[in-house]
Amino acid sequence: MSFFIKRLTVVGLGLIGGSLAQALREQDLVGEVVGVARRRRTLEKGLEMGVIDRGTVSAQEGVAGANLVLVSTPVCSIVPMVENFAPYLAKGAVVTDAGSVKGSIVRRCEAKMPEHAHFVGSHPIAGREHSGVEASIPSLYHGSRTIITPTTNTQPQAMEFVRLVWEAVGSKVETMDPDYHDRVLAATSHLPHLMAYNIVNTLSDLEDDLRGEVFRFAASGFRDFTRIASSDPTMWRDICLENREAIVEMLNRFRVDLEQLTKRVQEGDADGLFGKFARAKGTRDRVLAENKVLRGDS
Amino acid sequence: MSFFIKRLTVVGLGLIGGSLAQALREQDLVGEVVGVARRRRTLEKGLEMGVIDRGTVSAQEGVAGANLVLVSTPVCSIVPMVENFAPYLAKGAVVTDAGSVKGSIVRRCEAKMPEHAHFVGSHPIAGREHSGVEASIPSLYHGSRTIITPTTNTQPQAMEFVRLVWEAVGSKVETMDPDYHDRVLAATSHLPHLMAYNIVNTLSDLEDDLRGEVFRFAASGFRDFTRIASSDPTMWRDICLENREAIVEMLNRFRVDLEQLTKRVQEGDADGLFGKFARAKGTRDRVLAENKVLRGDS
Repeated sequence: MSFFIKRLTVVGLGLIGGSLAQALREQDLVGEVVGVARRRRTLEKGLEMGVIDRGTVSAQEGVAGANLVLVSTPVCSIVPMVENFAPYLAKGAVVTDAGSVKGSIVRRCEAKMPEHAHFVGSHPIAGREHSGVEASIPSLYHGSRTIITPTTNTQPQAMEFVRLVWEAVGSKVETMDPDYHDRVLAATSHLPHLMAYNIVNTLSDLEDDLRGEVFRFAASGFRDFTRIASSDPTMWRDICLENREAIVEMLNRFRVDLEQLTKRVQEGDADGLFGKFARAKGTRDRVLAENKVLRGDS
Repeated sequence: MSFFIKRLTVVGLGLIGGSLAQALREQDLVGEVVGVARRRRTLEKGLEMGVIDRGTVSAQEGVAGANLVLVSTPVCSIVPMVENFAPYLAKGAVVTDAGSVKGSIVRRCEAKMPEHAHFVGSHPIAGREHSGVEASIPSLYHGSRTIITPTTNTQPQAMEFVRLVWEAVGSKVETMDPDYHDRVLAATSHLPHLMAYNIVNTLSDLEDDLRGEVFRFAASGFRDFTRIASSDPTMWRDICLENREAIVEMLNRFRVDLEQLTKRVQEGDADGLFGKFARAKGTRDRVLAENKVLRGDS
């Protein structure tokens, strides 16, 4: 199976959209690439690097005539952006996004589509330390995973097309219900990030003299927590707003377990503590044995 | 300043004690090394590797005539072990330990010392992925930190001697009050480890089908948490029992912050969430700028 995209429009030109454009171009799978960004500087950079053929600050103008539109803006901007450009979509246009939250976004984007265009939610799980179109590389998706989140309203051909596009750039594609996706990500990504932010703040609140020692003696376990606490605060605020329900569920589950653990420490419950720690270690060892995903980078 | 240890006894022969013996031997700072272990196999291994000159399963026998005794057993065994061999210590013997909890251990060990011997608490912060005497290497302490924890009862010469020993093997030595040490470690090491165990258990409790996805989509943040959840459950049970008070304090502080964070997510408090995340990121960035310890491995 193969495809050719006569015109791809990337709305929110950055690492994610820029890398997709570069990867498709490298394989001659795309004719023209149009970039949409708020700042002209971004468009100039994209042109200079050959990532896009033309750029505009108007999404309405940018999506005109596009066969595929990728919305790779921050999660809170996806729905307003789609609402803004939807009436200008060409007949048969397929729109996908790259948001790390899907349920509410997919539902709202679907509702904005005109009769003649189709929305399919995507979540490519890929990234680099640096962001922005200047960081984009054609190999970003090699060996990555992308979750696409069809609903009962999704047009099968549109879904198939979106799958082929992600596969063409080297990603392994899986499909998942949008709300289910949000619970999985809340557990595996959002909860650990929030714990990281929380622990750094807890330690910052320790009285000044102790705090000095805290950061001076930061052990390796602590370093791992602080690493993910250096993520972009705006992005994480937006994820919390968009995936509120699933995140609150995970935070509450965590808190209940934490209260039980605290009680066991308080009571000096040796067997209870050993049981908890051995179970966690056992789970990890089993998961490592079953699934090599935890060993490499992704 | 220099020293020579005519006889060093390592009680609880493993990575920590074996590496100290090797490092001192490499610099001709020790005459005879005596190893004490519960299992003869450990002693044989130590002899075979040249880490020790002789071995015994009796601590009472092992400490006889030693100038320096290092107790490098699991934290829960330090006090009973010291109590067991204390009456057999030579005149002027100095005893130190390598426990990662200090307050209660130091107080109790001091109380067990005969008039003619001296206890000084140590916490060398060093380790490798593998443990046991077979993993010991003379370079283990190069670039490490060791915290020594004198009290008002500590003999100044004994403290100075212990400091020189750790410095001789390449460690940077700092002194700290034992209880203060325990709060610092509870914050920087014990709290992150308990959070890691807790998060793995929370995720394991998710219903079976979701759990499969959870571990399959484990993102990099989650991997970092699970790594420290693979630590030895017995060791962490013992640390919780020995450092109960400081750990409960940190768990409670963390829980209060977590409840506030959960409330903000629940209420969709965009500014409050941004503020929390930006503060954590700011703390980490500031700490990185001030203190390079977070960048390297330790």
